[in-house]
Amino acid sequence: MYKLLKKCGNARRGEFTTPHGVVQTPVFMNVGTLAAIKGAVSSIDLEEIGCQVELSNTYHLHLRPGDEVVRKMGGLHKFMNWSRPILTDSGGFQVFSLSKMRKIKEEGVYFSSHIDGRKIFMGPEESMRIQSNLASTIAMAFDECIPNPSPREYVEDSVARTTRWLYRCKDELNRLNSLPDTINNKQMLFGINQGGIYEDIRIEHAKTIAKLDLDGYAIGGLAVGETHEEMYRIIDAVAPHLPQDKPIYLMGVGIPSNILEAVDRGVDFFDCVLPARNGRHGHVFTKDGKINLMNAKFELDANPIDEGCQCPACKHYSRAYIRHLFKAKELLAMRLCVLHNLYFYNNLMKEIREAIDGDYFQDYKKQKLEQWGGRA
Amino acid sequence: MYKLLKKCGNARRGEFTTPHGVVQTPVFMNVGTLAAIKGAVSSIDLEEIGCQVELSNTYHLHLRPGDEVVRKMGGLHKFMNWSRPILTDSGGFQVFSLSKMRKIKEEGVYFSSHIDGRKIFMGPEESMRIQSNLASTIAMAFDECIPNPSPREYVEDSVARTTRWLYRCKDELNRLNSLPDTINNKQMLFGINQGGIYEDIRIEHAKTIAKLDLDGYAIGGLAVGETHEEMYRIIDAVAPHLPQDKPIYLMGVGIPSNILEAVDRGVDFFDCVLPARNGRHGHVFTKDGKINLMNAKFELDANPIDEGCQCPACKHYSRAYIRHLFKAKELLAMRLCVLHNLYFYNNLMKEIREAIDGDYFQDYKKQKLEQWGGRA
Repeated sequence: MYKLLKKCGNARRGEFTTPHGVVQTPVFMNVGTLAAIKGAVSSIDLEEIGCQVELSNTYHLHLRPGDEVVRKMGGLHKFMNWSRPILTDSGGFQVFSLSKMRKIKEEGVYFSSHIDGRKIFMGPEESMRIQSNLASTIAMAFDECIPNPSPREYVEDSVARTTRWLYRCKDELNRLNSLPDTINNKQMLFGINQGGIYEDIRIEHAKTIAKLDLDGYAIGGLAVGETHEEMYRIIDAVAPHLPQDKPIYLMGVGIPSNILEAVDRGVDFFDCVLPARNGRHGHVFTKDGKINLMNAKFELDANPIDEGCQCPACKHYSRAYIRHLFKAKELLAMRLCVLHNLYFYNNLMKEIREAIDGDYFQDYKKQKLEQWGGRA
Repeated sequence: MYKLLKKCGNARRGEFTTPHGVVQTPVFMNVGTLAAIKGAVSSIDLEEIGCQVELSNTYHLHLRPGDEVVRKMGGLHKFMNWSRPILTDSGGFQVFSLSKMRKIKEEGVYFSSHIDGRKIFMGPEESMRIQSNLASTIAMAFDECIPNPSPREYVEDSVARTTRWLYRCKDELNRLNSLPDTINNKQMLFGINQGGIYEDIRIEHAKTIAKLDLDGYAIGGLAVGETHEEMYRIIDAVAPHLPQDKPIYLMGVGIPSNILEAVDRGVDFFDCVLPARNGRHGHVFTKDGKINLMNAKFELDANPIDEGCQCPACKHYSRAYIRHLFKAKELLAMRLCVLHNLYFYNNLMKEIREAIDGDYFQDYKKQKLEQWGGRA
């Protein structure tokens, strides 16, 4: 249940009520692919760094430990000890990004596991069954994610199939939610808008899926090859045609400036592996943009990563110390930088919400983009 | 300053006062070789798991980031943000265990770096200067650690040299402590008893070094090839000849049963990489001895690693979850198991202290050894 609290231009301040609590939007979801955030970050840490929604991957958990194992352990929430909302992606994106061999048919996708090459089939029903076993708060529809640019004809066919798959997802999740032994029988479903960089296909698809009255709508298939300007153009075009009484989720985006631009275009939900991945390589976000802690100039720098930051790394450790940990190949280096970057993102969203609440989002956005100077 | 509070048989309950606070003994020191505990464990974590003394490595920190860097950052305490006592080893053990090429001379040891093969010289004075730069609470004397068994003649010569080195260590540390720009000018010095598995050489050496009135005395050169029984025999022989008004430190030992046996023979200080190393491989200590979380039987085990344990892993996560994290190569797996194992060791020492206080150490030891059944 989405409640719009306030608008500031097109930026939306809302509350999304789920069976696992209320999410304040705009929100950044912290990605824990395999039911843990890469970089030795736990669900307890997520609480400390202000995470509202955890995101795990259907495809990865299907392979390891297996969704049946997670089901037997009482679902993802119990398995990873996280009581707040969890969103699971559908596996669609991973099938297309990780598998070397795949065949797309009307019934679904035949592909090979990226771990052992084993043949796997996943269609809308399979994805819903896996996500029901994982018992996430929000399940994502199974779609085809198309690289940009793709030929118009292919995109039209693919989007039509994604629509047919969406109907099947909805039917299957309704069935699963009505079963007596389903762990979370209030599992929500978000549909995914596709259409590559063709505005008219995007809009047509948005109107079609809007009719299904789903719990939320995602814009998929962006940040997969197009420029930032193309991405913003597509969001500008499609966001107004998605139901305004539902949350809008821009999948897999992005760097902080992308988030500000997308919020400014009406987006409510975000996720991205980037803050954790950057952190594992010593690339950390600061109020002056991203810096590389490996840089020699930080060897004797007694300052925290980002002055004034209240994250567990900045409260206790210096750039010099964390740089040493990277050089010495100590895992603590990754952990501290991932904690910092996720805190940075979660805190950015908090500031964005405050800026919309306080009616100064445009000023806030302008100020941040200037401070970052193209480095975030 | 060591204060003996109580004895229970030969087991000693004491307090060791340092410039960085009072240490309750017997104590296990948690090993953070490069100023961090391997497995993404921070100094803040060490507080939570009950660590009293952190131990870092002179040789490793000399190479990375360099003791001059640590000195410029204000010493190890400031660098790693740990206010309680830190003990630094002398580098002697690493020179002998890590370097492939080395030449021992009267002045010290010529050897090659295990990182880049670069030629390095370290003698008593160099070790003291590095440790003074690191500004640890307790510096260890620079000695030769001899593998067991070694020929009697070699051991005699080596021990005589280690004694001459000890005098040089004491002189140099006195000089360094008197310099106006020394970070910790109350740095303490522990001497190291050597002598392989020859009781008479050990005892003679103990008597010799006892005369130097150092802040503490270590038994070195054990757990390097001899059996547990030989180790206990040597401790039995030498411990009574070390000053009883000073703490006795058994270096690099060991498994939990070794610790119980050594406490029973009058030892006060311990350190070992084993709990952290075991943890990183999923081998965790429980009240029933060590178990391997990789074992298939834990796939659906909803219990914590050790029922009733109050460590950060056991309070929040199941064996099944942690096993999954190992299988999925998530670093969080290592972190949780290292935290657990270090907590286990620190808690074991706490229980040992309580058992001596309460005059039931013998019963406690017997009960623990029975419960562990040779598996710890």
